[in-house]
Amino acid sequence: METDFVDWLLPRLPSHPRLEVPAGDDAAVLRSPAMRRTVVTVDMLTEGVDFIVGSDCTPREVGHKALAVNLSDLAAMAARPEAAVVAVCLPRTASVSLAEGLHEGLATLALEYDVALAGGDTNAWDGPLVISVTALGSVPPGQAWRRDGARAGDRIVVTGPCGGSLLGRHLRVMPRCREAVEIAERFAVHAAIDISDGLSLDLSRMMTASKAGCLLDLAEVPIHDDAVTMSRRQGDGRTPLDHALADGEDFELLLAMPPDDAQRLVADPPAGLAPAVIGEVIGGPGLFAVDAKGEWQPLAPRGFIHDFGG
Amino acid sequence: METDFVDWLLPRLPSHPRLEVPAGDDAAVLRSPAMRRTVVTVDMLTEGVDFIVGSDCTPREVGHKALAVNLSDLAAMAARPEAAVVAVCLPRTASVSLAEGLHEGLATLALEYDVALAGGDTNAWDGPLVISVTALGSVPPGQAWRRDGARAGDRIVVTGPCGGSLLGRHLRVMPRCREAVEIAERFAVHAAIDISDGLSLDLSRMMTASKAGCLLDLAEVPIHDDAVTMSRRQGDGRTPLDHALADGEDFELLLAMPPDDAQRLVADPPAGLAPAVIGEVIGGPGLFAVDAKGEWQPLAPRGFIHDFGG
Repeated sequence: METDFVDWLLPRLPSHPRLEVPAGDDAAVLRSPAMRRTVVTVDMLTEGVDFIVGSDCTPREVGHKALAVNLSDLAAMAARPEAAVVAVCLPRTASVSLAEGLHEGLATLALEYDVALAGGDTNAWDGPLVISVTALGSVPPGQAWRRDGARAGDRIVVTGPCGGSLLGRHLRVMPRCREAVEIAERFAVHAAIDISDGLSLDLSRMMTASKAGCLLDLAEVPIHDDAVTMSRRQGDGRTPLDHALADGEDFELLLAMPPDDAQRLVADPPAGLAPAVIGEVIGGPGLFAVDAKGEWQPLAPRGFIHDFGG
Repeated sequence: METDFVDWLLPRLPSHPRLEVPAGDDAAVLRSPAMRRTVVTVDMLTEGVDFIVGSDCTPREVGHKALAVNLSDLAAMAARPEAAVVAVCLPRTASVSLAEGLHEGLATLALEYDVALAGGDTNAWDGPLVISVTALGSVPPGQAWRRDGARAGDRIVVTGPCGGSLLGRHLRVMPRCREAVEIAERFAVHAAIDISDGLSLDLSRMMTASKAGCLLDLAEVPIHDDAVTMSRRQGDGRTPLDHALADGEDFELLLAMPPDDAQRLVADPPAGLAPAVIGEVIGGPGLFAVDAKGEWQPLAPRGFIHDFGG
């Protein structure tokens, strides 16, 4: 009943002044903001890999997260979210409540972030749920944050505490879009990335792209209460800091900034943000931490690496 | 090896002057053309529903088709293609040649249509291949073709012969993008849709959206040689016209045009196009055909309807 589902969905998609032609035609037409670049990103989530509906999350949470991870990518570019399109493949045996839940999660977050839902594609098959969201944002020309601009001497700032997101925060992601736009307006940022796969892994990606390295001050890494809770669990065997460095799905931002800008950001952050300076960019490659004797020790980047057997 | 695959893929993505920030960052940044609207569409193809790699198509053909069906949606809006992003979920057991083939099909078509491949998302799982393409195009403000603008008295034009696409044309789709832009520049078009699910079904969708109906002149429907071939097959039991009306995946365009414009288009079409006037829009709902006695007979829209059990 793709047709039935689309018939059900279309009147529920909120109209948006940004839509010259709304969902329901062969394509949607967007009034792009003048004098800005278009920023585009896509993320696909699959049942059994990224989530299991029912046992560890609700359809609504899947819809929320599928859009949220894309908005976090826009935040990592300092882009203002504009619109999104959604493609889903529903299990043929699924109830209508699955589709309704997905839509509710998507539409509620879209409303909160002023994102125009510009349509999508609904399919059915005998496999598990697949959802792919493409998000469009905008940024002034030449102003998008990149991950390859970190320079020796920059400070590394993280926008909030990390670790233990699997306790539930990974499903309630509220991406740092508004905060990113404000930071871009007020401060110089040389490079940025969002923490999806793990603080140390995403930091190492920024450093590799920037052909630089980083000396981390581990005592300054802000640790989320969830990381403490997880480390106390029977058999966990990891410290709260381990969790903060490797868990991922924090969806905070890592920023490489000139020292003065980093200090000013920490002293006067956007509302609701608790950023911290956690390291310094160095000329050579690799991640390092200072040990108790004051000596540099290599730090292996850890986090979630997608596995492909091929 | 998502990371490995991305490492393999990134240097192979051709650079494009439209990309201010290319694939490989958190998102891509596009130089959107000034004074034009952004047109966006998404289509997801799944193995076992839309194709079976190996037995009925190659990875390269899947990559080609996944982009082509989206470009056809842009053509149905009279939009010029600009960029595309791709999300794939690869079977964990797949060989690297699957990914290479997909990329080759995508990249070759993108080059031919001057589409900037702006990045994507690669996942792996234990399920079959899923590929979702989002295409971005552009069109002058207020100039996008819609499907809801057909008016009584308009002529219905189809841009080429239909039927029998399953013999192989459905894999070699060359969407009518260039032709659509030229038609939009030279003629008045009140409504448009591309033929993906079946001429009669897609025509009925245009009529429903336009709150109108259509009287078809079945003798004028251009029939593809493939439709003739299929109807001759043992046990087929359908006429070539049946195939032309119902098979779908022709990816020709249906246009509702003022009579004068329709005649001028047929008399002097864009290069390589053989359009035909096949009917007239009427005030009331429904599709009709004139029988041998000159009387109107209702025509049931037929074609491919996606099934969802819920």
